[in-house]
Amino acid sequence: MERTIGILGGMGPLATAELFRRIVLKTPARRDQEHPRVIIYNNPKIPDRTAFIIDEGEDPRPALVESARKLEEWGADFIVMPCNTAHFFEETIRRAVRIPLVSMVEETAEHVKRLGIKKVGLLATDGTIKGMVYHRALLRRGVRIALPDRKGQKDVMRGIYEGVKTGNLELGRGLLLREARKLQRRSEGVIAGCTEVSVVLKPEDLKVPLIDPLDVVAERAVRLALGVEDF
Amino acid sequence: MERTIGILGGMGPLATAELFRRIVLKTPARRDQEHPRVIIYNNPKIPDRTAFIIDEGEDPRPALVESARKLEEWGADFIVMPCNTAHFFEETIRRAVRIPLVSMVEETAEHVKRLGIKKVGLLATDGTIKGMVYHRALLRRGVRIALPDRKGQKDVMRGIYEGVKTGNLELGRGLLLREARKLQRRSEGVIAGCTEVSVVLKPEDLKVPLIDPLDVVAERAVRLALGVEDF
Repeated sequence: MERTIGILGGMGPLATAELFRRIVLKTPARRDQEHPRVIIYNNPKIPDRTAFIIDEGEDPRPALVESARKLEEWGADFIVMPCNTAHFFEETIRRAVRIPLVSMVEETAEHVKRLGIKKVGLLATDGTIKGMVYHRALLRRGVRIALPDRKGQKDVMRGIYEGVKTGNLELGRGLLLREARKLQRRSEGVIAGCTEVSVVLKPEDLKVPLIDPLDVVAERAVRLALGVEDF
Repeated sequence: MERTIGILGGMGPLATAELFRRIVLKTPARRDQEHPRVIIYNNPKIPDRTAFIIDEGEDPRPALVESARKLEEWGADFIVMPCNTAHFFEETIRRAVRIPLVSMVEETAEHVKRLGIKKVGLLATDGTIKGMVYHRALLRRGVRIALPDRKGQKDVMRGIYEGVKTGNLELGRGLLLREARKLQRRSEGVIAGCTEVSVVLKPEDLKVPLIDPLDVVAERAVRLALGVEDF
């Protein structure tokens, strides 16, 4: 049974386009009609997740819930959300809809565990880190986490916000690549734990595996959509 | 006034992802929240357009109309459709919804005219050519058209259907590039008149301008969405 993929997007828009592209490329289809249906709500108006988690910015939960409900109403059979930080609010979204939310964070943590990695580097926003989004999922599976130092984490945030999110991909890639290379010295793999990082780093950039949550969730979404796997 | 972009997609899915990506990259935004909302219905189940126009295949009009009505109902303020051949059915879709359909074909023809081009090469499906989709829009503006010869057109179709649509981008690019280079000898510009062509050819590939309808319509969609232009 085929399923319609719902993408709760806009956080950010480029990452949303990238997830969609990877879903299409990972689908084993020989013609248009063999691809699954995808409904995307690219809603960039959802307030910044990190700003709320660490700075008491505007609460993104009402907009997240509204967007998820729209996807459900429009006919999506499950939801994927190409924003790692937004997974801080996973439970709130899950409780608001009847269709499953396929967690990019849980799928990625499971993938890291399957790779046999004991200590993984994490490139993510302050919100993802302070909100313990990956910490909870990884520690539960016995995986330890290496983070950038204080100055390095500032550069990660600059690379994401001043680089990728403003369309300055070169600045973003430069800053994020430097921190990724530092992290690989103290870990067996690095998680591109922010979708803006996924957009600019490639596996060839590192000597250890680059674990890309966008790839992990894209592959799972394709299998669910084609009905070869269940929830 | 900002507007929500509706993308009637799936024809094909990769071209839909590419239009979305270009819309995001062409938006002058410094943060997520400055981007417009986009709703995408990627419906690859719409029957093949060319097969209907030339071969009496299944009629795609009911699915096109249904998809356009969904976008309207979901809150899109206007529709763009990343499939040149589907513009054969433009009027049918236009009559079925109250929101505007921004025609990729009319916008492109206008763009070609503005460039001062008198004769333009056209890489397109048999359906687009036999259906006179670009012919009507270009001839009305005094622009003549150069087409591949019979054998060349077969290679264009192979490049689109056996190449890009099956995910074999290398085969697709090879065949389409060869025909594009032949066309540039007898024209002042070449239209990538099928979204699968847009996906694999780049302006640097040719000595004459490569006119990419996906770019033309993406730029127009951004201006409409940001409210700096009207219909």
